Amino acid sequence: MRFFSDNAAPACQSVLDALVAANQLDTAYDGDAWSQSLDARFAALFETEVRVLWVATGTAANSLALAALCPPHGGVVCHAQAHIQNDECGAPEFYTHGAKLMLVEGAGAKLSPAQVTAALDAVNPGVHWVQPHALSITNATEYGEVYTPEQVAALGAICRERSLGFHMDGARFANAVAHLGCSPAALTWRAGVDALSFGFTKNGGMGAEALVFFKAELAEATHYRRKRAGHLLSKGRYLAAQILAMLDDDVWLANARAANAGARLLAGAAGDRLVHPVQANEVFLRATPQEATSLRALGFDFYDWAPGEVRLVTSWNQDVEHIRPLADAIAAL
Amino acid sequence: MRFFSDNAAPACQSVLDALVAANQLDTAYDGDAWSQSLDARFAALFETEVRVLWVATGTAANSLALAALCPPHGGVVCHAQAHIQNDECGAPEFYTHGAKLMLVEGAGAKLSPAQVTAALDAVNPGVHWVQPHALSITNATEYGEVYTPEQVAALGAICRERSLGFHMDGARFANAVAHLGCSPAALTWRAGVDALSFGFTKNGGMGAEALVFFKAELAEATHYRRKRAGHLLSKGRYLAAQILAMLDDDVWLANARAANAGARLLAGAAGDRLVHPVQANEVFLRATPQEATSLRALGFDFYDWAPGEVRLVTSWNQDVEHIRPLADAIAAL
Amino acid sequence: MRFFSDNAAPACQSVLDALVAANQLDTAYDGDAWSQSLDARFAALFETEVRVLWVATGTAANSLALAALCPPHGGVVCHAQAHIQNDECGAPEFYTHGAKLMLVEGAGAKLSPAQVTAALDAVNPGVHWVQPHALSITNATEYGEVYTPEQVAALGAICRERSLGFHMDGARFANAVAHLGCSPAALTWRAGVDALSFGFTKNGGMGAEALVFFKAELAEATHYRRKRAGHLLSKGRYLAAQILAMLDDDVWLANARAANAGARLLAGAAGDRLVHPVQANEVFLRATPQEATSLRALGFDFYDWAPGEVRLVTSWNQDVEHIRPLADAIAAL
Amino acid sequence: MRFFSDNAAPACQSVLDALVAANQLDTAYDGDAWSQSLDARFAALFETEVRVLWVATGTAANSLALAALCPPHGGVVCHAQAHIQNDECGAPEFYTHGAKLMLVEGAGAKLSPAQVTAALDAVNPGVHWVQPHALSITNATEYGEVYTPEQVAALGAICRERSLGFHMDGARFANAVAHLGCSPAALTWRAGVDALSFGFTKNGGMGAEALVFFKAELAEATHYRRKRAGHLLSKGRYLAAQILAMLDDDVWLANARAANAGARLLAGAAGDRLVHPVQANEVFLRATPQEATSLRALGFDFYDWAPGEVRLVTSWNQDVEHIRPLADAIAAL
Repeated sequence: MRFFSDNAAPACQSVLDALVAANQLDTAYDGDAWSQSLDARFAALFETEVRVLWVATGTAANSLALAALCPPHGGVVCHAQAHIQNDECGAPEFYTHGAKLMLVEGAGAKLSPAQVTAALDAVNPGVHWVQPHALSITNATEYGEVYTPEQVAALGAICRERSLGFHMDGARFANAVAHLGCSPAALTWRAGVDALSFGFTKNGGMGAEALVFFKAELAEATHYRRKRAGHLLSKGRYLAAQILAMLDDDVWLANARAANAGARLLAGAAGDRLVHPVQANEVFLRATPQEATSLRALGFDFYDWAPGEVRLVTSWNQDVEHIRPLADAIAAL
Repeated sequence: MRFFSDNAAPACQSVLDALVAANQLDTAYDGDAWSQSLDARFAALFETEVRVLWVATGTAANSLALAALCPPHGGVVCHAQAHIQNDECGAPEFYTHGAKLMLVEGAGAKLSPAQVTAALDAVNPGVHWVQPHALSITNATEYGEVYTPEQVAALGAICRERSLGFHMDGARFANAVAHLGCSPAALTWRAGVDALSFGFTKNGGMGAEALVFFKAELAEATHYRRKRAGHLLSKGRYLAAQILAMLDDDVWLANARAANAGARLLAGAAGDRLVHPVQANEVFLRATPQEATSLRALGFDFYDWAPGEVRLVTSWNQDVEHIRPLADAIAAL
Repeated sequence: MRFFSDNAAPACQSVLDALVAANQLDTAYDGDAWSQSLDARFAALFETEVRVLWVATGTAANSLALAALCPPHGGVVCHAQAHIQNDECGAPEFYTHGAKLMLVEGAGAKLSPAQVTAALDAVNPGVHWVQPHALSITNATEYGEVYTPEQVAALGAICRERSLGFHMDGARFANAVAHLGCSPAALTWRAGVDALSFGFTKNGGMGAEALVFFKAELAEATHYRRKRAGHLLSKGRYLAAQILAMLDDDVWLANARAANAGARLLAGAAGDRLVHPVQANEVFLRATPQEATSLRALGFDFYDWAPGEVRLVTSWNQDVEHIRPLADAIAAL
Repeated sequence: MRFFSDNAAPACQSVLDALVAANQLDTAYDGDAWSQSLDARFAALFETEVRVLWVATGTAANSLALAALCPPHGGVVCHAQAHIQNDECGAPEFYTHGAKLMLVEGAGAKLSPAQVTAALDAVNPGVHWVQPHALSITNATEYGEVYTPEQVAALGAICRERSLGFHMDGARFANAVAHLGCSPAALTWRAGVDALSFGFTKNGGMGAEALVFFKAELAEATHYRRKRAGHLLSKGRYLAAQILAMLDDDVWLANARAANAGARLLAGAAGDRLVHPVQANEVFLRATPQEATSLRALGFDFYDWAPGEVRLVTSWNQDVEHIRPLADAIAAL
């Protein structure tokens, strides 16, 4: 059983069906009926006007968002453990043409208003230092914690005061919403978020992410940047169809709830081995190398995260009967 | 009936079947079994060792190839009508960090050795002019003509003499091979090509292209550039599976032959209306605005290409019964 | 006697004196008294509010101007023989992060409204083509011709209509103004120019150019771009002092008149050998290789420009007694 | 009396004289006799073959060096307080096209082998993380401390083992050599340094820095990058002449010794107020806001560096009679 990452899980049946249904001649790029309906569908979901572009990866979504919010000579404040810093091989620097990520520490890969304010205050004004132009947070975070709407809004207020763009990396946005039970609007634009990378791939898609802009003017140049980056697929309807299929009947929420439930099951078994509170679908566990080896010997695969620490990620398709054996094995350590 | 472009056609059944077959848990990115088998499969096809990376678009494939062949301060010689110049919104400049496309004219969007040599000779040596580092040609060309192995080899000889990298944009490479009946090897590395963008999407894929390097050392940094560009899909097996399915049983060739046959049918009907010889799956036709309108009134869609000229593109899935009505309508003009 | 280029001439005495006078402790970068006075001094010269940044080279001035006027995904329309295209090793692409130069032909390296309009009309709208965002012209041109205020204004009108930024490369702006006898205002902002690279180096400076913005908002980010490009010299007062010294007593105009007078003297001797009308300080001459050799044998140095064509450039410090021998030699050919 | 920074000091007499002497017609760019002699002059100084390019600023020298050592997708390990990180507005990111600075802490802005090794070991291999390609240190450091040849060599050994390029920001290299009394060779290439930004501006120049490559192959593309960045001044002889004048009679060493002596005088007066050992020409002093105010009231200008800490920088032209009053005032606090 693999608990490496949700990004290796298969696509869900709704997505497969949608691909087959979309397998007909239509207009190329994003001129097709599926792509053209995205703005309206996401507007309904977010209760406000939005501009939505599909892309094939979360890295592309994040980087295009940052390029819309930060000039080449600017900086993006983010957590030192953020995906954009550690897992994208410098994609933000590529798409922004060399903007600087300004790293801030914080427990659980979360940033507090005080930490962000301190980082901003430490920047010398003037042309010698890179000046911050944007803030990027991840929700759920890289350590599986979730920002509440109030926590996001507190950061959003700083962004408004300091004229910073505000980006949310939502590779696991569905897991965050599923955990909170809040509206997507409350967690984003109502809290000041300008651009959201809304992930569908980890959550049951085949390869499709929605870049959601809550300010229409941010979308315009992004259409050029997407094309220029080779991310305007000629048969874009297959991406749009995946996303639409997951919005239908709230498949996105059902899938995320399933993954979260799996993680909660593991967390319950883990007790005080937990390194971080489990709020989404990631479980960080204290385990000796011997303990890790013994779990692997039972057929469970996962990453060593740090010395004495392992990471387990649950996926939309792992139901209780899949998870239970690992939970039992952890409890028995 | 749509003759806008082959890039809007549906995916073929082999590709759909392959996607379903690949819909299981595996390693993320390109660590899966499908992706890992690409090098060997293409090595067999090209009769030489190769390094192959999948990407989702031809623009990404072309740009990554050029970034591997040309430094930011260098230039890429190409045809003034090349896709990389006119249809990619500056993607080559983005990926190469500002290399300059050095435009050369030539009939049928083809470049001759004399034209390329003249362009190279016109460059002043030294640091004031951008110096050429690569040549890029398209086969089949943007006007549906095909370079023969001998013609490619003559350009390859120039590249070798002048230490230029040699890229082939093969968005319609299958159509070229189908037309020529030659081996893929003869048309590429044996003729001096260093990197090939081998297109599958227009030819029956859903969204998958193979970037083929005939020199292993060019591939290494490309893996980083692909990730950095957001083109390393987390569920890459779905791209690899498409490509492999089209290599199986030479589906790629069968599809290209079908599209070429459709174009030949139209060409036969067009007679001296043809602007360019029809060698692949594109037909450029002289037609007055009135004639174009009359064809559209019959339900045929296509692009106006230039004043008095229209473009018709046939696709893998348009068989004779689809094409015949348009051929008849053209003949009847 | 060297007629290679005015960019190799010595600095004039006013400049040397100014450097010595500035050789005292002051604030670093551009916080010093000299630098701080530039805006006001140029405002007086141009009869309007301006923002002025010194830089060390014309290439830096041009590139910073273009970066202010064109995004990375945009295009800059310019003459195919423009310095920014042929003599700056891709600096515009570097500073703009990969914008595309869109080349237009025109006699004497000048662009007419009709030529520019035709080039703009040839661009397909949409995200596939690079869209033009700016126009750049050179005055005096690379072939020593001069745009009149009316000619500039006709191009400026196109820029206003099409929402294009308008840049003037004025490496030899002084020579153009000296030729026309017009006001600097008439030749620039009153004709729609947004940014001017105002050259001082070729015209008697040691190494200093003024980048003049006629719209204050264009200057702001340019301060960051200049620093980021390593062009914010720590002892910037030495650059400002050069420029101020040349504005004093209209040294810039006197120097340009001297250089222009030298060129006119040569032009008079050249008669129908002239390739272009001589309006600034460059003379393009038909001369056989034997004739060129015979001139060189007399001690005159210059560039071969094209087969059967040589270029002679006069400088601010070459007075009649320096020029006469060459004029006589040309007449005697 | 200003102790803000040595980068605001005037130019020394040798430099002024050299500028006047160079004020004659010669070949443009770096084709002149002065520029052409740099390689040989620095080869003699460094006792090995070198390639030397002049540039106008330290930021340009550093950035060009890093661009030669690190690809766009790579990383440069440096101190968190390095000038390249904090004082160049992202110039390294601009010139390298988005390489990432990988920040390491260390007392006195110095890096130890253990700190560098730990940082390197923390990098995950593979395409998801930016991989380090170079190490950059500053000598003397931003806090006025000096790496010994042995300390540099220990870092150089790591670079060799890990195939990293090794850059030394020597904006105050002269001060380091003056402090150590070692040979320039011992502190650079013999210790594994590949590229040195050798500063002359702070040390008595008007505006000239030497970028010294100890591996000839690193210089070649740098000539293009320099031009492309607008740093190939057309009258480059004035930069070369400054540098040559300071190499003559070891003016560079005499100037650095003078500045260092001034700092030592202040350090002697400061006693245990010193934050860092004083080894070059910077003095960091604990001082309450009231104490700082009282010093300023006496006419001394300087920067507040951190709460309770001020920075005093001495310059080549501040002799004992200039420094003594401040030393006395500090002693009297």
